[in-house]
Amino acid sequence: MKIEKKNLGEKFDLIKDYWNPKIAGEINENYLKLAKVKGEFDWHHHENEDELFLVIKGSLLIKLKEGDKKINEGEFIIIPKGVEHKPVAEEEVQLLLIEPKSTLNTGNVKNEKTITTLEWI
Amino acid sequence: MKIEKKNLGEKFDLIKDYWNPKIAGEINENYLKLAKVKGEFDWHHHENEDELFLVIKGSLLIKLKEGDKKINEGEFIIIPKGVEHKPVAEEEVQLLLIEPKSTLNTGNVKNEKTITTLEWI
Repeated sequence: MKIEKKNLGEKFDLIKDYWNPKIAGEINENYLKLAKVKGEFDWHHHENEDELFLVIKGSLLIKLKEGDKKINEGEFIIIPKGVEHKPVAEEEVQLLLIEPKSTLNTGNVKNEKTITTLEWI
Repeated sequence: MKIEKKNLGEKFDLIKDYWNPKIAGEINENYLKLAKVKGEFDWHHHENEDELFLVIKGSLLIKLKEGDKKINEGEFIIIPKGVEHKPVAEEEVQLLLIEPKSTLNTGNVKNEKTITTLEWI
């Protein structure tokens, strides 16, 4: 495997669709994913996987049963396994995600937003 | 466990020493670590662990046997397990690292730079 650096800005420029994370790297059993999001996602949880949301650009609201969290640029939150959450982006947000390779974007829910084939970027 | 967001800038302000990564979160079997680095680190590799370096501020040189990589702000590189590397920071660099919990900072090398007790931040 060739070792190459990647530039977040350049990679985000290539992403044209929302709520469709692309794989930008693999670290042990996890993928580093990049996603642009805008609008409301569905409530879901991940049975066995913690999930990192690092906001690269914009401001992401994570709705939780215990209260909402506003994650601004340069901030991150880790949603532990099993915790119901609903991401909402009023304006476009650029996100860096770290998730186990097994993670499905919609967690325990399967619907039209579920993405089963992830592309590399 | 209380779910809280963390601000990278605020956390980096708390870090006063170089080459001493602090744990800022756990994601499955990995730690998210924050480190300030300046100067030269030793050549080393990690037998079983890939390592993510995401540059939050500054510019990091990663020396590799196959050639050097300059990682600037907003760029990342993943050093696969087994690959010899030597990080060098001419000026102070703020780094976000993702590594398995088992990862020792100096990898296969143990010396005065080795840190065995990691603090949370």
